[in-house]
Amino acid sequence: MFKEKVAAAYQLIQDEICSGLEQADGHATFEEELWHREGGGGGRTRVIQSGAVIEKGGVNFSAVHGQLPEAVKRSFNVESDAFFATGVSIVIHPVNPFVPIIHMNIRYFEMDEQTRWFGGGIDLTPHYVIPTDARFFHHRLKQTCDEFDKAFYPKFKAIADDYFFIKHRQETRGVGGIFYDRLRPESTGHDFEHLFNFSLAVGRTFVPVYAELIDRNQEQHYTEQHKEWQYLRRGRYAEFNLVYDAGTKFGLETNGRIESILMSLPPMAKWPYDPQVVAGSEEEKTLALLKKGIDWV
Amino acid sequence: MFKEKVAAAYQLIQDEICSGLEQADGHATFEEELWHREGGGGGRTRVIQSGAVIEKGGVNFSAVHGQLPEAVKRSFNVESDAFFATGVSIVIHPVNPFVPIIHMNIRYFEMDEQTRWFGGGIDLTPHYVIPTDARFFHHRLKQTCDEFDKAFYPKFKAIADDYFFIKHRQETRGVGGIFYDRLRPESTGHDFEHLFNFSLAVGRTFVPVYAELIDRNQEQHYTEQHKEWQYLRRGRYAEFNLVYDAGTKFGLETNGRIESILMSLPPMAKWPYDPQVVAGSEEEKTLALLKKGIDWV
Repeated sequence: MFKEKVAAAYQLIQDEICSGLEQADGHATFEEELWHREGGGGGRTRVIQSGAVIEKGGVNFSAVHGQLPEAVKRSFNVESDAFFATGVSIVIHPVNPFVPIIHMNIRYFEMDEQTRWFGGGIDLTPHYVIPTDARFFHHRLKQTCDEFDKAFYPKFKAIADDYFFIKHRQETRGVGGIFYDRLRPESTGHDFEHLFNFSLAVGRTFVPVYAELIDRNQEQHYTEQHKEWQYLRRGRYAEFNLVYDAGTKFGLETNGRIESILMSLPPMAKWPYDPQVVAGSEEEKTLALLKKGIDWV
Repeated sequence: MFKEKVAAAYQLIQDEICSGLEQADGHATFEEELWHREGGGGGRTRVIQSGAVIEKGGVNFSAVHGQLPEAVKRSFNVESDAFFATGVSIVIHPVNPFVPIIHMNIRYFEMDEQTRWFGGGIDLTPHYVIPTDARFFHHRLKQTCDEFDKAFYPKFKAIADDYFFIKHRQETRGVGGIFYDRLRPESTGHDFEHLFNFSLAVGRTFVPVYAELIDRNQEQHYTEQHKEWQYLRRGRYAEFNLVYDAGTKFGLETNGRIESILMSLPPMAKWPYDPQVVAGSEEEKTLALLKKGIDWV
C-alpha cells in the first residue's frame, strides 16, 4: 500500500541522514529510542549530543495511526475518523555559532483516498547570517524544487517566510527556506507518486546542503561574545517553537511524546534583559537580514 | 479617584519591594526604564542583574489606559471600550539553586463602575523543594489572607495549583501559592476598599517572605550538578510562561512591551534530551512534590 511505501522510504531517509550527520560530526553518534503510541503506531527517536560539531540534534521518524480527535475530524469533513501519519523531523543545534541551526520535516498524512497529502520543508537559522551561505542554501532548495515543478520554490519560499516569523519580535526565525503543506494532485497538478518523489528529494537535499554549511564554517574561530549571541538567538528559537510552531502546539495539546516534541529546544539558551547590539556590528547586520521577502537566489 | 489612588499605592509598593530586594542582594541595584504606551499610559520597568543573590529579576509597575480590542470588549459585555489597568509584576531568578524562583503580581482593572476588579497572586518555584520552606511560604500567605477573609487562602491556593500547572509535563511549576482574579464586592462580600487593602497586604508580604527564604538558603554550598538541575528547572519555567501564562499570551498578542513581558524568562536555561533523575536523589524528591493539592499548612 502507498502509505506503507512512504513510511518505509522515510525510514531509509532517517538512516541516510543519521549516517551523514555522524560523518559530518566525526565524533558523536546517535542514540536511538523506540517508542510506541498508545493509540497506534510509534517511532524511532534518534538523538546526538555533545558532538564535535553538533551540540544537540534529533532526527525522528514516526508512523502513527488511530482516531482523530472529534474537533480535528470535523474540520476535515471526512466520514471516518481513522488517520495515518508518517514523517521525519530534524532539528540540529551546532556548537560553533557560525554554523547555522537547521530544521527539516517531511511528512505524509492520510485519512482516506480523497483526504491525503504531503507536507514539509527545510529552513535555516544562522546565528550570524552569512549572505553567501544563505544564497547557497536557497539556491540548492530551488534546484530540488525545480526538478519537480518550477512553481514550487517561489511559492514554498514565500510560505516559509510567513511561517517562520516571530511576530512579537517582528523578526524572522532565520533566513527561511521552503515550507509546504497539503500537497495533493488537486492543488498541484501532479500525481501522488510525483509528490512522493519530491518529498524524498527534499529529504535527500538535507545532508549535502548541511554538510557543506558545516564544512564552510566549523573551523571558524569564535569568542565568548559570539557564544553569548548564539545563546540569545537560541532563546528566540525556543520562543518561536513554544509560542508559534504548529507541530509543537499540536503535539503538546494531543499528549504527544514530550521529549520527541521538545527535542527541538536548544541545549542552552539565555535571556538577558533588553540586549542591545552595537551599531555596525555583525550582530546588527544579522538582525537587519531577519526580514521577510529577501530574494536569496 | 479610586483608580489613581490604587496606581499611586502600587508605585509605592514597587519602591518598597525594590529597596527590600536591593538590601537582600547586598550587591546589585535596580536599573529603571520609563516607557510610554502608544494607546495611553506607561510604566516603570526595573531590572536587577548579576547580583550576589539575584541573577536576573524584574519589578515592573504599569498604569495603562485606552480602548480594548473589540473581541475582548464583547466578552466583557460593557457599553464603552475604555479601560484602565494598573499593576506590579515581579519575577526573580536567583543565583543559588537552593534559593527559589519567585513570582508576584498585584493588579487592578477598571472599565466602568460595574466592571472593575482586583487580581494577583504570589507563587514559589523552588529548584529543590525544601518542605520547611514551602510550609513557611504557605503559612505566611495564609496569614495575610486570613486577615481579610478566612475563605481566601483555601480558595486562592486551589486556583494557584490549577493555574501554575505544566500540562504537557504533568507537573506543577513549583509549590504554588495563591492566585486570584476578578475580586469584586459581588464575588467576595467585601467592598473595594477592603479588597484594595488585601491587594496591598499581598504586595507587602513579598519582601519579608522572600528575604527570609534568601536568608535561609543563600549560603548553601552548591555543585555543578545542582546548577545543571537549576538550568533544567528554569527551562520548565520558560515552557510554562511561553505556552500557558495568560499574562504573557495577552501581552504578546496585544503587542505589549516585549522586554517587560519576557522579563520573566530565565537568564539561562538548558534543555538536555530526556534527562533522568537518580532514584532516591534530591531531584527525584523534588519531582515527587511538584503535584497539585499538597496541603502545606
